[in-house]
Amino acid sequence: TKSFKVVLIPGDGIGPEVVAQAVRVLNVIDSSSPEIRLQLESHDFGGIAIDNHGDPLPDSTLKACKEADAVLLGAVGGPKWGVGKVRPEQGLLKLRKELGLYANIRPASFASDSLLANSPLKESVAKGVDFVCVRELIGGLYFGERKEQGSEPQPEAAWDTMIYSVEEVQRITRVAAQIALTTTPPMAVHSIDKANVLASSRLWRKVVTETITKEYPTLQLDHQLVDSAAMILVSNPRKLNGVIVTENMFGDILSDEASVIPGSLGLLPSASLAGAPVVSDAKDFKPCFGLYEPIHGSAPDIAGQGIANPIGTILSVALMLRYSFGLEKQAKAIEEAVRKALDSKEQGGLELRTKDLGGNVRTEQIGEQVVNILKTLL
Amino acid sequence: TKSFKVVLIPGDGIGPEVVAQAVRVLNVIDSSSPEIRLQLESHDFGGIAIDNHGDPLPDSTLKACKEADAVLLGAVGGPKWGVGKVRPEQGLLKLRKELGLYANIRPASFASDSLLANSPLKESVAKGVDFVCVRELIGGLYFGERKEQGSEPQPEAAWDTMIYSVEEVQRITRVAAQIALTTTPPMAVHSIDKANVLASSRLWRKVVTETITKEYPTLQLDHQLVDSAAMILVSNPRKLNGVIVTENMFGDILSDEASVIPGSLGLLPSASLAGAPVVSDAKDFKPCFGLYEPIHGSAPDIAGQGIANPIGTILSVALMLRYSFGLEKQAKAIEEAVRKALDSKEQGGLELRTKDLGGNVRTEQIGEQVVNILKTLL
Ligand SMILES: CC(C)[C@H](C(=O)O)[C@@H](O)C(=O)O
Ligand SMILES: CC(C)[C@H](C(=O)O)[C@@H](O)C(=O)O
Repeated sequence: TKSFKVVLIPGDGIGPEVVAQAVRVLNVIDSSSPEIRLQLESHDFGGIAIDNHGDPLPDSTLKACKEADAVLLGAVGGPKWGVGKVRPEQGLLKLRKELGLYANIRPASFASDSLLANSPLKESVAKGVDFVCVRELIGGLYFGERKEQGSEPQPEAAWDTMIYSVEEVQRITRVAAQIALTTTPPMAVHSIDKANVLASSRLWRKVVTETITKEYPTLQLDHQLVDSAAMILVSNPRKLNGVIVTENMFGDILSDEASVIPGSLGLLPSASLAGAPVVSDAKDFKPCFGLYEPIHGSAPDIAGQGIANPIGTILSVALMLRYSFGLEKQAKAIEEAVRKALDSKEQGGLELRTKDLGGNVRTEQIGEQVVNILKTLL
Repeated sequence: TKSFKVVLIPGDGIGPEVVAQAVRVLNVIDSSSPEIRLQLESHDFGGIAIDNHGDPLPDSTLKACKEADAVLLGAVGGPKWGVGKVRPEQGLLKLRKELGLYANIRPASFASDSLLANSPLKESVAKGVDFVCVRELIGGLYFGERKEQGSEPQPEAAWDTMIYSVEEVQRITRVAAQIALTTTPPMAVHSIDKANVLASSRLWRKVVTETITKEYPTLQLDHQLVDSAAMILVSNPRKLNGVIVTENMFGDILSDEASVIPGSLGLLPSASLAGAPVVSDAKDFKPCFGLYEPIHGSAPDIAGQGIANPIGTILSVALMLRYSFGLEKQAKAIEEAVRKALDSKEQGGLELRTKDLGGNVRTEQIGEQVVNILKTLL
């Protein structure tokens, strides 16, 4: 029996609503085979943890996460805690660091071609976009030494440090390479930096090149400058199809830019990993600890109404099965169920549309339909 | 008589071709009134300067720029010099620093609504986009202390510093505010940072807020996080209409991202200023030294064919007249002439389209037609 412990941290705003639907999916997977056992437990994190414990990341939550095989997060933050001294994002950054989640994975593609109409890009530009952003998550400007204004020396200045070591760049390159190898043929790897200006980017480019050349010689690799990549993502995004790998700050910007292409933030999942995943139906599968979450925020304006799109969270469960549990078949089944729920009637799908996609289908209805389809596929 | 000295640095690739058309426009302005005298002289810069002088920025060129009232640049760089020890961009960064060009101004809007079809964004999303990016140009990660890999201490690491002082942020805020005041009613100011993570961004946000509140209390100001701004630029760019002001690295990324909205890089001008401009037809006009250039690169693939789009360079001349010479009427006339050259026949325009816009009109023909229309407007 494969037994896994999953910590749920629903968080704030619409977090609990979307996590509830993902839990239905997890339960279906659990019931689908006597060989699979998923144990779920919930913990406070973010704004709700500030309210309940005075700390966005209580020790008990951190401990539970460390003992789990995977974590599923809803969303954190909201205007209530936005200005306080203790802010939810401090908890988020600490959680990433404490759990060693150095690789943030964000696929961006059209779950169903029927969603092309929802993209801000012309359909001819958006059609066929299919890439995975791999962002280094616990290095660079986010965690380098910094100095606030007001402190000595130079009280009139503030600074942050973008620092990378060879080892940090090697390990994120390996994640990108492993992701590239999850398809046949493997995806191309596009490394993004600003090597014409920054020392850290020159190290980045050199180490990415060496690591791929030595350890993954069959993979295709190219380099783009970050400004140029920001343009290409809008003007000709298919050019970056494959795996996009970059440092923390550039990845924050580019992965958000990329995320609006598929029409709604509500559709997109993410994984933050503490290792390089191996193709999960491979014989040599090694579980990789990860935190999984939809990319959207807590959306306080629609919280509690039951109209949030749970698909990003449900697809995050698919990533969890793939990278942390080695359940590739089940992961594919979830992705297939989502596609059928979204496909147009013409395509033989249910054409379900939550508010973000211009429809009025409710959060629970999406969960229910996905679960129904999933059961027929397992 | 208003007499101005303009240094031309045509540079590499298509640079000389587009500058030649801008020179025709400058000559028309010079002849249009006995009160205006423009003296032009050309100097080597970039790749061609590496070839001729072994230095992308020869002392003679720098000296000429320092003695000029304004500089017009074509484009620099190309594969020939891309990998060498002496690279064109080193000259560019040195030129910016030596001339004190701390404010990079990049308007992004549709020169003619007939170009909406060329935008990668859906027409409903792109229509009415009209903003000016103001990027801090000689601070932050570009000019902070850095350490290359291989040097002590920590030979396995490399780092760059994102540093800002109160005074640096004050002066760029004033530029943004002055630009906002060039329209009636004034434009909104959108300041972009990453204040939820970076110390330099917290300083940035504080100083921008204080400067606007104290010195420009009537202006509308809001703050966006850089990741969120990168999304909005694609999903709902009109939301950022007005002036977007940000630090060097974020500005490099966001202004390039924004620049693909109007359909072709060939259309867009830029100004890099050494001061805060005052509305140029105001009685209190004070000339502001500036370097003006189209935002496109040297495009070696089409160099020498006479098919490059010279409009970005011609519109850069309009910005020169506005910010450096106080010739607002003439600046508007150039912009009007360009609009007429681009407008569809239906709209009463000439509908001229170079290759980048899907047509086959040649570089020289654009120059000739713009000059002809301009003469009727002066
Ligand atoms: C909330 C913030 C600190 C965070 C980040 O910048 O990493 C967020 O934007 C993200 O991308 O997860
Ligand atoms: C060539 C490069 C150093 C430069 C920059 O990053 O500033 C360019 O991208 C620009 O925006 O002018």
